[in-house]
Amino acid sequence: MNAPESTPSAVSFGPPSRTLMGPGPSNVAPRVLEALARPTVGHLDPTFVGLMDDVKGLLQKTFRTDYPVTMPVSGPGTAGMQACVSNLVEPGDTVVVAVNGVFGGRLADMVRRVGGEAVVVEDAWGGPVDPSKIEAALDAHPNAKMVAFVHAETSTGAASDAAAIAAIARAHDCLTLVDTVTSLAGIPLEVGEWQLDAVYSGTQKCLSAPPGLSPVCFSPRAIDAIQARKTPVPSWFLDVSLVLGYWGDGAQRTYHHTAPINMIYALHESLIALHEEGLESAWARHRAQHERLRDGLDSLGLRLVVDAEHRLPQLNAVAIPDGVDDATVRRRLLDEHQLEIGAGLGPMAGKIWRIGLMGHTAREENVERAIRALGSVLQ
Amino acid sequence: MNAPESTPSAVSFGPPSRTLMGPGPSNVAPRVLEALARPTVGHLDPTFVGLMDDVKGLLQKTFRTDYPVTMPVSGPGTAGMQACVSNLVEPGDTVVVAVNGVFGGRLADMVRRVGGEAVVVEDAWGGPVDPSKIEAALDAHPNAKMVAFVHAETSTGAASDAAAIAAIARAHDCLTLVDTVTSLAGIPLEVGEWQLDAVYSGTQKCLSAPPGLSPVCFSPRAIDAIQARKTPVPSWFLDVSLVLGYWGDGAQRTYHHTAPINMIYALHESLIALHEEGLESAWARHRAQHERLRDGLDSLGLRLVVDAEHRLPQLNAVAIPDGVDDATVRRRLLDEHQLEIGAGLGPMAGKIWRIGLMGHTAREENVERAIRALGSVLQ
Repeated sequence: MNAPESTPSAVSFGPPSRTLMGPGPSNVAPRVLEALARPTVGHLDPTFVGLMDDVKGLLQKTFRTDYPVTMPVSGPGTAGMQACVSNLVEPGDTVVVAVNGVFGGRLADMVRRVGGEAVVVEDAWGGPVDPSKIEAALDAHPNAKMVAFVHAETSTGAASDAAAIAAIARAHDCLTLVDTVTSLAGIPLEVGEWQLDAVYSGTQKCLSAPPGLSPVCFSPRAIDAIQARKTPVPSWFLDVSLVLGYWGDGAQRTYHHTAPINMIYALHESLIALHEEGLESAWARHRAQHERLRDGLDSLGLRLVVDAEHRLPQLNAVAIPDGVDDATVRRRLLDEHQLEIGAGLGPMAGKIWRIGLMGHTAREENVERAIRALGSVLQ
Repeated sequence: MNAPESTPSAVSFGPPSRTLMGPGPSNVAPRVLEALARPTVGHLDPTFVGLMDDVKGLLQKTFRTDYPVTMPVSGPGTAGMQACVSNLVEPGDTVVVAVNGVFGGRLADMVRRVGGEAVVVEDAWGGPVDPSKIEAALDAHPNAKMVAFVHAETSTGAASDAAAIAAIARAHDCLTLVDTVTSLAGIPLEVGEWQLDAVYSGTQKCLSAPPGLSPVCFSPRAIDAIQARKTPVPSWFLDVSLVLGYWGDGAQRTYHHTAPINMIYALHESLIALHEEGLESAWARHRAQHERLRDGLDSLGLRLVVDAEHRLPQLNAVAIPDGVDDATVRRRLLDEHQLEIGAGLGPMAGKIWRIGLMGHTAREENVERAIRALGSVLQ
């Protein structure tokens, strides 16, 4: 009983070079992979502490906010989502949760698990969150503390009007908890101007860093709410008031957990690359490559599921034509063209493909490769 | 209010080449950094799914167990600790927690935050957990569900007798929750033979992969206890029964969260390197380099804090001599010798240095460099 049943392969892993056009991870630029592999230093090394300040500043610039509490959580996007929920929802709190895809549903589940009451407002998968329904839910639940919603639903490719939803929440004296995993750096996101309160994202989408970190930011109002909690945050690991001992103030950083040093090198480099291009230019590039993809899909007779007004340029949900086998096509794209596209999730499984155009992947050569490959496999 | 106050530096980060002899991270071998930088693939890519099986097998071989639930949690060691506590402790559960340093105290805090009652059994910092006190606590608390303790206290450098503590827990029909962050691959650890139940570790200590993943394993008995929970795990992110949809069975992996792909490349390569050397050989190397360090410290008149019987070879707590300024010495070691050693934590702050000899760092040349550097700075 003390040894594994089979001997694992002890050969170094040589990953294939894929074109990553699924829902993330996106392709990581060579300069970011190079940064990832730089020598590891300690998490309290003065040079690393300086890097942390730079990462914080670059994340503020990317979220478009000056919120002092802006940092990468040491885990994937789901850890950032968990951090926002675990810190801001206490037992008995009422949270209006918009559900128009997988990730809204996950938010509602998380709210319930920490003892909150999730008032679920449903909208069709593939469409946006309807702000008027949020308003009605807040009118019906005047005790609500927060509105939680997904800016860019990765499971369907639909964008919602975060500014409008946040304005309604504010008018009802509610905080907002916003999933920007797929939106950050892909479409306009104005955390400061829209006054969003608890915002999380991921590194492996439009930032094109490897997966494993979750940039988050909290408004002063959100921090006040965390500090006014009556019960401790159930997760020691994700308790923002503890994490801030490390990430909060450059003058006196103290150990909380060991930061993922090399991942932060990579995030830093990806943020530098993003701001060399310019955030607005990156948004425009995602839009332009989306239009190129849309035209190519049109030429193949393939239809986008989300209407033009609410379509995310960086995540394109394509209806699988009748008689075409989902898994076979995806497998052939992978095997014959080194091209990954994504499957549908939940009720969309087998009905849609998700074609991502995120970050470093969103380039003309990749769009043309994808159209050629799809044309070849579907012919 | 929408832009950061200061412009962050937009220059690529060039970390210095440090000799990492603190409490972790340890130096990462060039082959592991090279693996880290390989092209990112998708988390459901068939090649990556195969790699996950290999990583699982190699982790079983390293933990010395055949527990089917063995995997890396997608976060640092603290996330693994949180995963063990959050899954195994329900509101009202009584857990006997041994505290002989920082990490035992952290375990007790985590137990309380998820609604458990922590029965704290204290031992002196710098000494081991006293098994007879655990036995007495279990006799006094016959309703206890679990015993939680740290195998190798990173804050003090003391090893405890995990086999003896686990046998006592079993005799009282209790599970064990064991911190092996610093012990794994550094000193003998026999998860299967000792029948430990919920075990977590870190990648950045004796495995010498970068920080950011936490290898964990759960006994079938622990999995039964998780499945018998009356309340949901408060953390969706760390709920083992959900994570297993992705890590559990190679035949049908489904999305839970996006795994930190490149970090898993690095962990895989570090495990291959470890088993090329052989686990027993690695233990012996840590022991031999510790003895070399001890002799060198002796020659400088420096004293180890932990008695010889309970000393961790991979983490050496050294008493700071009277009249010597802690921070000045550490800063000079870093600036003049590119050598990182660790400070004391909590009540040991300013009283000890922690000199790590972990994984790839535990080599003769590093020990000699450290002794020369200490001699030069202290002269």
